[in-house]
Amino acid sequence: MFLGDVVGEPGRKAVIGQLASLRKELELDFIIVNGENAAGGRGITPKITIDLLRAGAAVVTTGDHVWDQQDIVDYFPTEPRLLRPINYPEGTPGAGWVVLETAKGKIAVIQAQGRSFIQPPLENPFVIVEDRIAKLREEGVKMIFLDFHAETTSEKIAMGWALDGKASVVVGTHTHVQTADERILPEGTGCLTDAGMCGPEHSVLGRSPESVVWRFRTGMPTRFPVAKGPVRLCGLVADIDPESGKCLSIERLNRLIDLNEGSEGA
Amino acid sequence: MFLGDVVGEPGRKAVIGQLASLRKELELDFIIVNGENAAGGRGITPKITIDLLRAGAAVVTTGDHVWDQQDIVDYFPTEPRLLRPINYPEGTPGAGWVVLETAKGKIAVIQAQGRSFIQPPLENPFVIVEDRIAKLREEGVKMIFLDFHAETTSEKIAMGWALDGKASVVVGTHTHVQTADERILPEGTGCLTDAGMCGPEHSVLGRSPESVVWRFRTGMPTRFPVAKGPVRLCGLVADIDPESGKCLSIERLNRLIDLNEGSEGA
Amino acid sequence: MFLGDVVGEPGRKAVIGQLASLRKELELDFIIVNGENAAGGRGITPKITIDLLRAGAAVVTTGDHVWDQQDIVDYFPTEPRLLRPINYPEGTPGAGWVVLETAKGKIAVIQAQGRSFIQPPLENPFVIVEDRIAKLREEGVKMIFLDFHAETTSEKIAMGWALDGKASVVVGTHTHVQTADERILPEGTGCLTDAGMCGPEHSVLGRSPESVVWRFRTGMPTRFPVAKGPVRLCGLVADIDPESGKCLSIERLNRLIDLNEGSEGA
Amino acid sequence: MFLGDVVGEPGRKAVIGQLASLRKELELDFIIVNGENAAGGRGITPKITIDLLRAGAAVVTTGDHVWDQQDIVDYFPTEPRLLRPINYPEGTPGAGWVVLETAKGKIAVIQAQGRSFIQPPLENPFVIVEDRIAKLREEGVKMIFLDFHAETTSEKIAMGWALDGKASVVVGTHTHVQTADERILPEGTGCLTDAGMCGPEHSVLGRSPESVVWRFRTGMPTRFPVAKGPVRLCGLVADIDPESGKCLSIERLNRLIDLNEGSEGA
Ligand SMILES: [Fe+2]
Ligand SMILES: [Fe+2]
Ligand SMILES: [Fe+2]
Ligand SMILES: [Fe+2]
Ligand SMILES: [Fe+2]
Ligand SMILES: [Fe+2]
Ligand SMILES: [Fe+2]
Ligand SMILES: [Fe+2]
Repeated sequence: MFLGDVVGEPGRKAVIGQLASLRKELELDFIIVNGENAAGGRGITPKITIDLLRAGAAVVTTGDHVWDQQDIVDYFPTEPRLLRPINYPEGTPGAGWVVLETAKGKIAVIQAQGRSFIQPPLENPFVIVEDRIAKLREEGVKMIFLDFHAETTSEKIAMGWALDGKASVVVGTHTHVQTADERILPEGTGCLTDAGMCGPEHSVLGRSPESVVWRFRTGMPTRFPVAKGPVRLCGLVADIDPESGKCLSIERLNRLIDLNEGSEGA
Repeated sequence: MFLGDVVGEPGRKAVIGQLASLRKELELDFIIVNGENAAGGRGITPKITIDLLRAGAAVVTTGDHVWDQQDIVDYFPTEPRLLRPINYPEGTPGAGWVVLETAKGKIAVIQAQGRSFIQPPLENPFVIVEDRIAKLREEGVKMIFLDFHAETTSEKIAMGWALDGKASVVVGTHTHVQTADERILPEGTGCLTDAGMCGPEHSVLGRSPESVVWRFRTGMPTRFPVAKGPVRLCGLVADIDPESGKCLSIERLNRLIDLNEGSEGA
Repeated sequence: MFLGDVVGEPGRKAVIGQLASLRKELELDFIIVNGENAAGGRGITPKITIDLLRAGAAVVTTGDHVWDQQDIVDYFPTEPRLLRPINYPEGTPGAGWVVLETAKGKIAVIQAQGRSFIQPPLENPFVIVEDRIAKLREEGVKMIFLDFHAETTSEKIAMGWALDGKASVVVGTHTHVQTADERILPEGTGCLTDAGMCGPEHSVLGRSPESVVWRFRTGMPTRFPVAKGPVRLCGLVADIDPESGKCLSIERLNRLIDLNEGSEGA
Repeated sequence: MFLGDVVGEPGRKAVIGQLASLRKELELDFIIVNGENAAGGRGITPKITIDLLRAGAAVVTTGDHVWDQQDIVDYFPTEPRLLRPINYPEGTPGAGWVVLETAKGKIAVIQAQGRSFIQPPLENPFVIVEDRIAKLREEGVKMIFLDFHAETTSEKIAMGWALDGKASVVVGTHTHVQTADERILPEGTGCLTDAGMCGPEHSVLGRSPESVVWRFRTGMPTRFPVAKGPVRLCGLVADIDPESGKCLSIERLNRLIDLNEGSEGA
């Protein structure tokens, strides 16, 4: 299972509170969580990373907000299950991929960042991800999961086609809105253009609507506080064949959680 | 009902072929179609506009590709049911809104274009759309539909919140991928961040996957032919209360059509 | 005379220290200073505005950094000689133009912001500035000066041509590098694509070179401290005919100032 | 000597007509010309490349418009003196650098493209250029010239500082407007933020002013014909010490040429 960008305290509480029961209900073997907005909407701290891993995440991915919290820079080399985009230049702290042993075999998780309308400019993710996957497959890793953190639908869908038959799942993140286009491409790669976020329902991407509307109306700066109220958990559940690495099924996860009461259903 | 960006000949054929049966099946009173990519993926011609209107569309909206076909410029003043974004400067050919009489009362359709990561730069859509809606409501128009053609999820969702209780439906277009976040905001405005497109399923936004992947891998220019094969029709169906203008229900429409055989279901 | 973006304490010290002697040496009647980076490189405060006006500036312009210092928002309505871009929506604090009486007649100063590669998106500056100038000329104002704060050379040069014969001087700001293309267009408008900045010579746009180079090399965030050492004062000196409003001569000003010793010459 | 972007037929005629006399007058040993806009403003053809080389250019550089003319793709591998940006992915036709023997020793010319506000996104030019220069210096090449084709002043000036003491000259291109900031950095690298273009004086970056102004005013598409009339030749003349590779002097070249009459002086 993959969960999209966790936003602020409401997103963290909902994710940490639900992971155990979701794992049971959905019979999950392996959980990946994107945590790039987990610290008040901006970045992630070492403590929050530990909390997410303890709650059941096997890997925590990030994105363009990866460096927003300063103490994460030194933490990266100590925690291989925390990923930053793989297409930073050589020498950057942290790693963009990790291979973990599971009961069903090795699983690789990769994170990359797009280059259309997203900052900073990084190296070509198509070239770097295909190279990395070629090496992983040579080493016998079959189950390969990519979190492609990118703005445009074209770049994310193109990545899915570029990796069809090479990766098990290609899921987009960053727009914080789940898309309704889950599918398995002809060669067996499961794709979803954007997983959506785990954050407050009454919001603009997790932030208070008033503040964001005011910004668009006036062009003047303001703070964008994390919104309150019920949280929507968005992500996907994929079934991967351990022998071939092909995706057998892919479903969107999309649930509204009342933090006081638990799940309200979708 | 609203149908998202119709892409090229496959998209046109599917939409024109299905409109009559969809109208019957879904008991549609009023159909709006976005046609900005209907002419080979780039713009729309007078002839295609006429074809879409004859097939049952009450209004045809466009977007950033509105001027791609040169002969549309002079056609605009002759056809008020064809819209371009309302936030072009005064004096621009065509109009950005239209009011039509229906059996259930007046319906206004407005089109606006966003300003984040989309060209050309236009006037502030929040200011202009709110002004236009205020005037429409003074004149007694209750049912108001906005096609907001914009790239980012933040700008599109913020527009929904800005118009909550003022417009009946705010639907985004432009990314060509349907989002899974249909909802009715607290004051009664139905929202969907992006309607998706009506175009070839095996594609990147309607274009051949090979060409788009090649572009991202190499950085070199190439043509992006419209893809072939089955077409996915994406859009939404909303039920609006004629008295209050509030949205009573909003559902995504998402169907795969085999052009040789008719609908394959969703 | 116009002086480009004053950057931080070094820029302020140099400008304030030199204005009186420059006025004498160059026989200046009217001095305009861009102060958008005067407060530590980010924005301007009420106190700094007052300091610049006291030192001899008749008008202080700003730009995209106008709101960086929070207390400037409430100060704007109290000081008509401080300008923000004219193409913000109606209702924005402050004004984008001012008319001042001088011994040689009325002078209007206008500030506008471009829309190519600069944030936030504002209203069309070509439309708004031409409208404003038409009204000023109806009211008999002949001497009209525009500070066009924009990124691209195309937008800035196009503004010069759009206003040829309507404005006396069109000078660009924002890139912090002076261009070498001063000229008088056929109908009498003096143009310079960018005035350059008043800031530290050993710098990248006024900031420490090490920090900016590190940012480009690594893609990782860092602080960009204002650089130290000698300051280059950049701007222009124009001679305007009070009768016709035409520009009679335009020259670049470009001087290196050792803050300990005074001017080192150009 | 370096000449900035040659625009269209007027630019070509002026450059080809003047190169021989400029070489004599300025005692030039080595001439580099940027030809990315030489073919009607868009790209360069094999024939134009040959014309520029025959007229006296030792190397022809390009930029973001490199692939605009289709037949240049296959020509690249046949002509090592024609460069495209070095930071395209491996496997791209053509090369981004060349070393030529001269009477005074080996000269390397490198071209790179920036990543701020310029398309397509390419690999990190700071990393790639520094690597290439390190190798060139290991091989004993001292005189190294970089044409850095980039939009923003910050990226171009930062490149100068990054290469101070490593390259002989770093000159920017792409904005088509010459900057007035030529200087030699502390470790001996000569820099100019933008060389400017060789194109029609009465123009916006070489194009007809009416067309560009119309585009900014209306937001509607139009053609941008190459302008007519006298041509301004912009570039720089640098004196490099063959022993150390350090820049001894750097001067802007900026001359208005009447195509019917020859040079009118600066
Ligand atoms: Fe995020
Ligand atoms: Fe993100
Ligand atoms: Fe479209
Ligand atoms: Fe579009
Ligand atoms: Fe500035
Ligand atoms: Fe600025
Ligand atoms: Fe160019
Ligand atoms: Fe260029």
